[in-house]
Parts: sequence; C-alpha cells; structure tokens
Amino acid sequence: MFKAIVNAETLGAALDAVGVLVDECKVHLEEEGLRIRAVDPANVGMVDMELDASAFESYEADGELVGVNLARLEDIASMADSGQLVQMELDEETRKLHIQIDGLEYTLALIDPDSIREEPDIPDLDLPAEIVLEGRNIDRAVTAADMVSDHIALGVDETDELFYVDAEGDTDDVHFELGQEDLISLTPGPAHSLFSLDYLKDMNKAIPKDTEVTVELGEEFPVKMHFEIAEGQGHVTFMLAPRIQSQ
Amino acid sequence: MFKAIVNAETLGAALDAVGVLVDECKVHLEEEGLRIRAVDPANVGMVDMELDASAFESYEADGELVGVNLARLEDIASMADSGQLVQMELDEETRKLHIQIDGLEYTLALIDPDSIREEPDIPDLDLPAEIVLEGRNIDRAVTAADMVSDHIALGVDETDELFYVDAEGDTDDVHFELGQEDLISLTPGPAHSLFSLDYLKDMNKAIPKDTEVTVELGEEFPVKMHFEIAEGQGHVTFMLAPRIQSQ
Amino acid sequence: MFKAIVNAETLGAALDAVGVLVDECKVHLEEEGLRIRAVDPANVGMVDMELDASAFESYEADGELVGVNLARLEDIASMADSGQLVQMELDEETRKLHIQIDGLEYTLALIDPDSIREEPDIPDLDLPAEIVLEGRNIDRAVTAADMVSDHIALGVDETDELFYVDAEGDTDDVHFELGQEDLISLTPGPAHSLFSLDYLKDMNKAIPKDTEVTVELGEEFPVKMHFEIAEGQGHVTFMLAPRIQSQ
Repeated sequence: MFKAIVNAETLGAALDAVGVLVDECKVHLEEEGLRIRAVDPANVGMVDMELDASAFESYEADGELVGVNLARLEDIASMADSGQLVQMELDEETRKLHIQIDGLEYTLALIDPDSIREEPDIPDLDLPAEIVLEGRNIDRAVTAADMVSDHIALGVDETDELFYVDAEGDTDDVHFELGQEDLISLTPGPAHSLFSLDYLKDMNKAIPKDTEVTVELGEEFPVKMHFEIAEGQGHVTFMLAPRIQSQ
Repeated sequence: MFKAIVNAETLGAALDAVGVLVDECKVHLEEEGLRIRAVDPANVGMVDMELDASAFESYEADGELVGVNLARLEDIASMADSGQLVQMELDEETRKLHIQIDGLEYTLALIDPDSIREEPDIPDLDLPAEIVLEGRNIDRAVTAADMVSDHIALGVDETDELFYVDAEGDTDDVHFELGQEDLISLTPGPAHSLFSLDYLKDMNKAIPKDTEVTVELGEEFPVKMHFEIAEGQGHVTFMLAPRIQSQ
Repeated sequence: MFKAIVNAETLGAALDAVGVLVDECKVHLEEEGLRIRAVDPANVGMVDMELDASAFESYEADGELVGVNLARLEDIASMADSGQLVQMELDEETRKLHIQIDGLEYTLALIDPDSIREEPDIPDLDLPAEIVLEGRNIDRAVTAADMVSDHIALGVDETDELFYVDAEGDTDDVHFELGQEDLISLTPGPAHSLFSLDYLKDMNKAIPKDTEVTVELGEEFPVKMHFEIAEGQGHVTFMLAPRIQSQ
C-alpha cells in the first residue's frame, strides 16, 4: 500500500531532479520514504534521490516498487498552485496511482517496472577534493562554458586553493575560478576531470540557485554533486562519468 | 453612420471573445450597441457578443452591417496603452474604418459582409442544469483534461449536488468535481454531455479568470456559457455542440 | 595596448547599437574612447558609435584597431549581473581579448580587421528638418507601420508643424502624427522620404524607449537618428538610405 500527502513544490523538486536525466523511472515506496535511482540511456549520468517520509504531510508505504512516467507526473504536480497539497494513493489491483489536488483527481497508469532500464549502482567513490558552493555558481560556470564548448573541465588548484572550471572552444576559452572567499568550503586535493557539458546543463536545471551544493572531484574520475531538497528532508546525488581527456 | 470612442481594454475583451472562434465576422452597428454573432467553420462552436452603447465613452450608430478582419482589429486595439481610448469612425463611401489611438490613425479596409459565413441562429434551449462558477475553474478543468484526452464530459451529479468534469485518455483519466462550496451556485438537473476539448480550450482563452461564468447543461445537449464583459455593459454567450458519446 | 573596465550595461548598450546592423565590426581603441563605424552588407544602414573614455571606470588605449565578433561579445557582456563590471585587456601577441567578470575569464579570439567589410564614410549631410522625440514614439510608429507594410514614409508637414509617419499596405493604411506638444522639438523643413521598415525595426531595437532621439530628414534623402548612451558619455548615429518612392 502507498498513501501520501505532500506539498506540490516538494514533490516537484524531487521529480525534477530525476526528470532531467530520464523519462521513466522505478520508484521505491519504502517505509522510510520515497527513493529513486536512475541512469541515462548512455550510462553517463546517474541520479539518486531520496525524499524522507518526514517531508510529507502524511506518508504510508510498505516497500512497493512502481514504474512511473516522470514527465506526466511532473505535469500533474504543476497543476497545483503554490502551497497546495497533492494526495497520492496506489491502487494495487489496477496498478494505477490516484492523485488528488483539491477537487481534481488524476488517475495515472503505472508502468511495469521490469520494462524500465535497470537501476544503477552508484559507486561509493572516495574522491580527494570536496567543494561546497552555491547553486548559482554552478549555473554561472555551465552557462559560460556553454558559450564556447561542449565539454568542461572541473578541477582544484591545490596551491592557490581554488576551484576552477575550464572550457576550450575552437577559438575562445572560458576560465572560471572561485577562491575560498567565493566558496562555502574547499577541501583541496588532486582533482581535474573533463565532462560532457550537455549532462551538466541538464543536472544544473534541477539544482536550486540558492542551495548549497557539495561537489566531489578527483583526477579523471566521476564528479558527484549532492544537495538537499525539501528543507533537508530530501537528498539528491548526481554522478557524472568523466570524458576521456583529449590532451 | 458609425462613430464611437471606447477604452482599448473593453474593445479588446469584446473582440477576443469572437476572435477565438473565427477570423472574420459581421459586426452589427446597432443604435443600442455593437453586436456580433459567429459560428466556426465546422458549425460546432458559436458566439454571441453584445457590447452596449453604455460601454463606450461615446457611441453613435444607425444599424450598419460591416465585415471585419478580427485579427487585424485585435492587433490595432493592442497598440493602445492600458487605459487609452480608441476612436472609430466608418467611412461609408470607401467602406473603410478609421481608427485613431492618440496620434496614430489606422485605416482598416472592411470586408464585404456577404462574403462572410452566415450568422448562426443560437437556439433558445431550455437546459435543465445551471452552474455558476469562477472562470479560473473552467481553466483548471480544461487544462487538466487536456493532459489526457481531446474530449471532455461535463455533467451534474444530482444526488451529491456536484458539477463534474471527466476526461478519459488511453491510459490516464482526469476527474474534477466542484461542490456547492466551490461553486457560486448550482441548479441541479439531469446533465451529462461530451465536448471537443479544442473548442473549449479556445473559448476558455476568452473567459477572464476572475469572472462569474454561467454554464447551462443537459443530457447530450449543447453547453451554453455566459459571462459579462465591460463591467456588465457587455455580454458574451458561447454555445458548443456536443460530440456523440463514444460509449 | 588596451585595458579598460566598464559597467556591463554601458558596454551592452554600446554593442547592441552596432549589433542590430552587423555581426562583425572593426573597433577603434582610441585614446579618447572606443569607436565603431559599420554598414550593413546591402549598404543601406550605417551606424557610428562612440563611447568616451569617461564612460569607463578606467580606460587606457593607444589607437589599436581590432576586429570583433559582436554577437559573441554581447553574449559575454550579458553574463554580468546588473551593475557588475567588465574588465577587458588586449593581448597584442595572441590577438585575443581577455574579458573578466568577477571570477569569470573569457578569452575572445579577435578577427583580422582586414577581413571585415570596409568602414563607411557617413556623409555629413545638411538635412532641412530636425525632429527631437522620445524613443518610445519611434517604437510606436515602427510597430504600427509594420502591421500594414514593409516600407514607411517619414516626413514633416511644414504648415501644421507636424512630424508624420505613413505606411500604405495593400488594403490598410497607417498614419501617425506628432505635433509640437508631442515632440521635444521640431525644426520644420521640406522633408518626405521612404524607408525600408526592416532596417528601421532593427535600429529601433537599439533605441532606448525613454531616450531623446534627434531625427534629421530631407526630401528623398537619408534619415539620420542620433541618441546618447552611457548617460551622455556615448553617442550613436544611425543613417538609413531612402528607398525610391513608388509613386
């Protein structure tokens, strides 16, 4: 069984974090909360999203696994006005999710979870550098890099204690540096990896501009980005595989 | 002769109500005011719009009939700033309408009324159910139904005294209910009819969100929707023919 | 050498004035300020833009000539938040412009000035009529004319002391008049010329709505439009060649 009531914005933020990478996903309706893990079709970008039971107005679940069309569910959540509540209830017989927003009832057909891409194992990497910064700085870096290139290098300058972003285009280059005073915190370590900008742009869409984002980096290793949603009662981890360095 | 001065917003609201259904229309320049009746090319949606002489700053007419390109006239009205006045004067010899907004003068060629589709007779139906609700609830119903289907059922539950909207898609359904407390008033009666969503979406565009709309419904009968414009000095009636029930 | 710091909005306004006509341009980095002259590929519209050294927070230059991709530079300037400063420095060896906005550094490859269209000589015409008006009235005239035609006549009625705009479409006409009370000033003189609306629309995009624009007109002569940017420390002149009158 699954029966829950949640603020529309909270639900929206949780779904958006996954929806930037995949169209459909498996949703674990655990006793402690809702959990989604997904990887994009090319196996490059992964997301792990947890929304604790405490983020809901009311929440009851016992471990069901359902398959969901994310775009559809995001559209439904967006029908709610700011601050409105969304009620969800699983009909186990018909495999449909009943969603109520005020007088509006939406019956969403679920997808067979077996027909959805396997969930990824997000590796528990021990990455040497950790940068904590505001979401708006990720947005700034991604927007600037996008002007010149389709890939982006993220790194740490251990000597000067800087987090930097490099993008090299055919004629123009972008370099973006954030020192201790621009960052919330920095744990320097050997770190420089190249990433596909397309994925970072998608992930960036789901990162609130005013949120603290923890970025973990290594040398030619994946980048991990963590941030909280639902006032700390939800958590998102993005992981992005590196591109082979062209030089 | 026809000579009138009207607030740009009033003119815009009046034209928009007709413009959502047809591109050209006959306009009756009656002594008591301006009147337009029109039906879409498929004979499914009709509109009857009256703008009383009292809605104008000044108004003189003696029963002329003119043919108008509505999109063109809406564009002209939209050149006015909020609160600006639009002066119109018919040149009977050249069959042109002179429109002045501040120093701007637009000469609009009229269309031969005989070349425009016949005006509909909007039948004087005695429909058993009447619902009075805010325009925003029609918008909500139409937007939700549009997520799953291209048709929409409107009906009244006489037992529970509810107005409801149903839309059935291939996999998902939408149901929307408004009880006495959500409505301005409800006169229950046997009512359930299916409509094309495309037409309702167009009509919805012309319905102000904060206006009172009176909806008249029957069983497999057309729906009528009435609302006021120009602070009560204008009146719009939409009528939409039902679709044959698929079940 | 060239090294300057300027408010992002000031830089943006200066670049936009040129960017509406051409994609690439030669930029003269003079001791007294930055100067750009350009003509569109059809030799119909010209622009002369000067941004005085005093419009900059700091400015050093010694007469270099560089070729610039304007769209690219406008994009970079738009990365700055309102009120942020843009630092520019020319690397004479690599022929690159280093642009810094806060921690963000952009390296812009310059273009060989010889590969850019010759700069126009903007003729020093002595036009008989001069109209000074608000930018918003040019916008209004251009928008209205665009509803009916692709060319526009600008003229002065010497008897009634009016500036007028005429646009004749296949069926509809637009006439726009501004008298002494609507204008900042008017020096009447024989003036009536026809122009391509496409060019005027482009120039209009770069004219701030609340700025004073001086329009100089003659009979079948080019029109000149001047306005200030950067609180008077910059100056833009547009010149547009007339079309042959069709009647």
